[in-house]
Amino acid sequence: MTQLDPARRTQVFQALRAQHIETPSWAYGNSGTRFKVFAQAGIPRTPYEKIDDAATVHQLTGVAPSVAIHIPWDQVDDYAALARYATDRGIRIGAINPNLFQEDDYRLGSLCHPDPSVRRKATDHLLECIEIGQLTGSDVLSVWVPDGTNYAGQDSITGRQDRLHDALREAYDRMPASMRLLLEYKFFEPHFYSMDVPDWGTSFAHCLRLGEQAQVLVDTGHHAPGTNIEFIVATLLREGKLGGFHFNSRNYADDDLMVGAADPFQLFRILNEIVAADALAAEANVAFMLDQCHNLEPKIPAMIRSVLNVQEATAKALLVDRDALRTAQRDGDVLGAHAVLMDAFNTDVRPLLAELRADAGLDPDPIAAYHRSGYQQRIEAERVGGSAMGWGA
Amino acid sequence: MTQLDPARRTQVFQALRAQHIETPSWAYGNSGTRFKVFAQAGIPRTPYEKIDDAATVHQLTGVAPSVAIHIPWDQVDDYAALARYATDRGIRIGAINPNLFQEDDYRLGSLCHPDPSVRRKATDHLLECIEIGQLTGSDVLSVWVPDGTNYAGQDSITGRQDRLHDALREAYDRMPASMRLLLEYKFFEPHFYSMDVPDWGTSFAHCLRLGEQAQVLVDTGHHAPGTNIEFIVATLLREGKLGGFHFNSRNYADDDLMVGAADPFQLFRILNEIVAADALAAEANVAFMLDQCHNLEPKIPAMIRSVLNVQEATAKALLVDRDALRTAQRDGDVLGAHAVLMDAFNTDVRPLLAELRADAGLDPDPIAAYHRSGYQQRIEAERVGGSAMGWGA
Amino acid sequence: MTQLDPARRTQVFQALRAQHIETPSWAYGNSGTRFKVFAQAGIPRTPYEKIDDAATVHQLTGVAPSVAIHIPWDQVDDYAALARYATDRGIRIGAINPNLFQEDDYRLGSLCHPDPSVRRKATDHLLECIEIGQLTGSDVLSVWVPDGTNYAGQDSITGRQDRLHDALREAYDRMPASMRLLLEYKFFEPHFYSMDVPDWGTSFAHCLRLGEQAQVLVDTGHHAPGTNIEFIVATLLREGKLGGFHFNSRNYADDDLMVGAADPFQLFRILNEIVAADALAAEANVAFMLDQCHNLEPKIPAMIRSVLNVQEATAKALLVDRDALRTAQRDGDVLGAHAVLMDAFNTDVRPLLAELRADAGLDPDPIAAYHRSGYQQRIEAERVGGSAMGWGA
Amino acid sequence: MTQLDPARRTQVFQALRAQHIETPSWAYGNSGTRFKVFAQAGIPRTPYEKIDDAATVHQLTGVAPSVAIHIPWDQVDDYAALARYATDRGIRIGAINPNLFQEDDYRLGSLCHPDPSVRRKATDHLLECIEIGQLTGSDVLSVWVPDGTNYAGQDSITGRQDRLHDALREAYDRMPASMRLLLEYKFFEPHFYSMDVPDWGTSFAHCLRLGEQAQVLVDTGHHAPGTNIEFIVATLLREGKLGGFHFNSRNYADDDLMVGAADPFQLFRILNEIVAADALAAEANVAFMLDQCHNLEPKIPAMIRSVLNVQEATAKALLVDRDALRTAQRDGDVLGAHAVLMDAFNTDVRPLLAELRADAGLDPDPIAAYHRSGYQQRIEAERVGGSAMGWGA
Repeated sequence: MTQLDPARRTQVFQALRAQHIETPSWAYGNSGTRFKVFAQAGIPRTPYEKIDDAATVHQLTGVAPSVAIHIPWDQVDDYAALARYATDRGIRIGAINPNLFQEDDYRLGSLCHPDPSVRRKATDHLLECIEIGQLTGSDVLSVWVPDGTNYAGQDSITGRQDRLHDALREAYDRMPASMRLLLEYKFFEPHFYSMDVPDWGTSFAHCLRLGEQAQVLVDTGHHAPGTNIEFIVATLLREGKLGGFHFNSRNYADDDLMVGAADPFQLFRILNEIVAADALAAEANVAFMLDQCHNLEPKIPAMIRSVLNVQEATAKALLVDRDALRTAQRDGDVLGAHAVLMDAFNTDVRPLLAELRADAGLDPDPIAAYHRSGYQQRIEAERVGGSAMGWGA
Repeated sequence: MTQLDPARRTQVFQALRAQHIETPSWAYGNSGTRFKVFAQAGIPRTPYEKIDDAATVHQLTGVAPSVAIHIPWDQVDDYAALARYATDRGIRIGAINPNLFQEDDYRLGSLCHPDPSVRRKATDHLLECIEIGQLTGSDVLSVWVPDGTNYAGQDSITGRQDRLHDALREAYDRMPASMRLLLEYKFFEPHFYSMDVPDWGTSFAHCLRLGEQAQVLVDTGHHAPGTNIEFIVATLLREGKLGGFHFNSRNYADDDLMVGAADPFQLFRILNEIVAADALAAEANVAFMLDQCHNLEPKIPAMIRSVLNVQEATAKALLVDRDALRTAQRDGDVLGAHAVLMDAFNTDVRPLLAELRADAGLDPDPIAAYHRSGYQQRIEAERVGGSAMGWGA
Repeated sequence: MTQLDPARRTQVFQALRAQHIETPSWAYGNSGTRFKVFAQAGIPRTPYEKIDDAATVHQLTGVAPSVAIHIPWDQVDDYAALARYATDRGIRIGAINPNLFQEDDYRLGSLCHPDPSVRRKATDHLLECIEIGQLTGSDVLSVWVPDGTNYAGQDSITGRQDRLHDALREAYDRMPASMRLLLEYKFFEPHFYSMDVPDWGTSFAHCLRLGEQAQVLVDTGHHAPGTNIEFIVATLLREGKLGGFHFNSRNYADDDLMVGAADPFQLFRILNEIVAADALAAEANVAFMLDQCHNLEPKIPAMIRSVLNVQEATAKALLVDRDALRTAQRDGDVLGAHAVLMDAFNTDVRPLLAELRADAGLDPDPIAAYHRSGYQQRIEAERVGGSAMGWGA
Repeated sequence: MTQLDPARRTQVFQALRAQHIETPSWAYGNSGTRFKVFAQAGIPRTPYEKIDDAATVHQLTGVAPSVAIHIPWDQVDDYAALARYATDRGIRIGAINPNLFQEDDYRLGSLCHPDPSVRRKATDHLLECIEIGQLTGSDVLSVWVPDGTNYAGQDSITGRQDRLHDALREAYDRMPASMRLLLEYKFFEPHFYSMDVPDWGTSFAHCLRLGEQAQVLVDTGHHAPGTNIEFIVATLLREGKLGGFHFNSRNYADDDLMVGAADPFQLFRILNEIVAADALAAEANVAFMLDQCHNLEPKIPAMIRSVLNVQEATAKALLVDRDALRTAQRDGDVLGAHAVLMDAFNTDVRPLLAELRADAGLDPDPIAAYHRSGYQQRIEAERVGGSAMGWGA
């Protein structure tokens, strides 16, 4: 079993302290399926209240110091004020997420729509988000293109790619040098015949054409059944094109469950590639972001749980004995190499992480601490009147 | 190529004339994904207007003489009056579809909910739907149990099965002898870890326990990737447990696209099993129902297209040379047997169906006829004010 | 974190000591894909040498006291002698596995073949295996029907089901009262359009018709992508029709990797349903069998690893706090119930199992013990000349 | 329904006459699954006899003028003589396919193997194949890298990519300017955790680094479930990186069934993208190659059927009314655009193709002509003694 000598322990703790996991503002609001959105009590009614929730998650976990926002869901009059509000609560605004799916005009697409006036509108929204990012001090524009078609023949696959390139090019050229455009891909939904950016290959090809500030965003729920996601992660790292993650977990489609809940071993394997490539550190510029929908479970504890799941997987990845692994791999020792990995995965890292938190003055059990804190009761009592935020709100 | 002698032609025409395809009231309303419902013009504002649309589809196609309803979406004060309204327009009310997913109480399930009071409410809704069916003269209670869980451990799989059985038993025992309970299964959505009726085996096991009036409902979009649906159809027919279909098509999940749009060959293979088992006729008691969501395309022409797609697949299945097929199969002639099937599939049956319609005094091209009819313009002009019906409306 | 008080520890140890995991004789021989079988050194050349290997796995793990055999791969002149040979080495012969796929006659099927003379031959093979089982004292006839078709139309789906039933009926009626027929299902391969027993529902329907001694065999690698296997396990247990498992793991198809290697959390969830239904004990009559192909890795250590993986998953399942789980489930506490399960899964049970082994006089680390034992060097030295056994040998 | 005016008919006929479909030498030999290779009568015993069979397919169809070879399966002493043998029979040698999977050394990979000496051997084989291609006048080196791993941790994903690049670079640099390296990708099999070239994105990234003579090879059976293949085709065409196809069809995995047998609509959609991009003509340099395994059915008629299936799909694609399609797409007419495509697909093109063949002096029904020709009887009588060729032979 893996035992940590003091030097290694220090190293592991340092790596874990450096990790930043960004939570998404929209996951604090109500969400659901096409069948039903179940409303919960205490849901934020304003972007400010979402920031309060995100700050709470950070206070308890110590590793979630930023919050991604979604425009127009998080539209405010004064973005600099929003950013200051965040800073005052100990976090900052992270990625800016344009919304390209909730306008009536977007029935047949946004950036890829056959009508140039709709494309103009969608492209302008990207430009607006770049501006917002500059106001909030964000350095990531996180672009999910929800465009696609439902029927073969509905539109020209190639024509849509051309339109997509033109729109992205315009946005890319407008970005300041400090900003990156992360282009997300998705296998299907909301369209069911073709998506305009269905896989990492398509995103990669677009990013190559755009330039160095464009990178691929991997949402762990956006793949075909059976896809080896850690292979994609390793390949993109090797190409210098891994921009970041939208973490969540899935059993079937884009289920948007809590990351690590459906397949904790997969999450570990992904983090293992990150650690193997030394891409955990801030310098590697890989954004670790959550993107989830807590349809049934309470939002804030679910978010804490998710942050902890990423942290636990990371800790396990850091425990992998890299020298032993390399040796076994070089020697073609199939079982030996696999065993090195499994040894780390099978280790219970919760005591280690409890220590890490105690060292940092945090409660060793952030979920229990949340339940004891009275925060949930407070928001349920205070957040009445107004309208709860949610998808589309 | 398949040529029809007059005797065979008569036989094929008779079979086609006997076919009944039921359209769903809810598909005339607005629908969408969790990301967006795109509203269309001319959408029905009442159950009566949905019946108008369904009647229009029947007038043009001649093979869609009934409409399924969804409770409470199609709730009215006087169901007998609704049934008369349908009859006056040349159609009738078909299956009654209880809604077990849109109450706030159903967050953790309906018939399988851990709380007995929620189960009571859901079971009462089934009983109410049986009553409505008696008032409308419907003989099918079409039960989709949208229950399930999102996380391993969330609830007891076995406990939920027990609860499900109890609720179905109570409803089953309340049904009149003329009514059938069709139990639909679904692979996933709206739940993403487990569904309480995920596959035909589970539905079959429940139906066996319930009794002869319980049968399995096959929704063509509710299977795992790669599932051979015609095998399930043949197996259920052999067991006397095929209650009917919810037709639609899919590429990925429960996409609810127009039937036959994603894989016309699959639709043909399914109808081929129906024809092979002589289960097309009314006596076979197999309900051919559509269940689709026209998110992007106009509803009524999409419904006509769907009815025609089923009809075309049926015509092709009727053209299969059964004697030649049997002989080739018996002789182990792999390519020969496959070729018999493909010969029918590759035949263009549209001229034949145009004749069939002309014989019946219908326009040979129902879609063109719809566009010429002015119906769409009329409903767009008339159906203003009130609120358009849709999922959840 | 889960801590065990002495009473609970005793209970867990008892349950673990009672667990029997059967290894398959064929997995000690060479195997591969259609592209290549890579030969290894030290491979058994006779059924007796396979038993030696199986006995070695049992000696080291203490929980693998039987070995399944495959006929005709393990054909010998004197089966009673083979059984005695096993007993002398501390194990016994387990399930008898008929081979219905390696005769030239079986190109179009075995029990389902269109030609009655081929069906006769295949059925006779089942009868022969029943006899062998009586000679070896085996109480399980493990039937995998590899039949199916590659092209739509190739044969009648229904006709093949009828033939299958007739053949199984004849075999079933010949079995002694002490024997069970376990009917395995498989999604696809070696046929690629239809399999004659593709899913648990089909196996279940056949078993119901056959009688109480027929039960379903779940091979964990034989499902459609995304299938929730533990749901099937729970459902079959509830119906009294779970006969046993063929354990292995998969990422894509029937990959036949070491159980627990691809998704350890899934293995845990399956064992969790077993433990929850109190079906671990011998009285429950659930056969825990491995069925794997070690294409790349050395056979015996891979088998030990697999046995340990099942044991570790079982230990974790035994650690689940059932009372806490029930309470959280009853209260609709989604996160709480899930956390109870995950708490057990996240526990490192290796120290516990090391103790269990030490208590039983075994080496706490069976893999290290194997490598130290010199067994591998010995068989590599001794097993030269003769022909190594393998698929088809 | 689609009617062809004389000018359009001429155009369609010209396009169809220009189409070349390459058949694979290995598909004339025996093949099977890992469970069983069923031998057939009349199977070639030498590469020359395979060429005889390929020439027969071309004589009957008129559109299969080349045959791909596989080294070392088609190893001969004098490749120039083999090429002349082909020319004498009216066809030519097409793509050279290196075999990187059937050496004992390749257990852990070939070009990606951890041991440099194995990589050297595999790379040398590529160089040998380039030489053979120069001798046979082939301009395509068709590289399938069957490398991968079965267990997480077994080897370094990134390390293997580096090794792969180095080997491909060496081969690429050795190719004459007239030759192209087509890099095939495959989702899984023969490895079940990771493949070293699992998807088009990976192949694309390697080809970009290699240079203009490297392009992606799309095998239609090598994708994750649900993958929209025509999207990939369109995207690669847009990037100038579509090298060609390995056509076959699948329901589950790499089933290698006859192309068009599992999903004829998919084949049509793929050809539709080819026609839409004007990539049917020889100048487009897209290689249309078959790669199939006729496990159950007789090889030569199966190959003829496959060639006809591609030809029928192509004919349908040529019938698509491009102007009407463009207009409907531009107008956002979802149903109208889809209907234009479906109109072509639903057309029975068999009479048209019969005419095309008659014009060319061919029998309108190549399959019937084959059966009448006596060729099958002749080879079954003549090809006795020697050993039938097959996978691994």
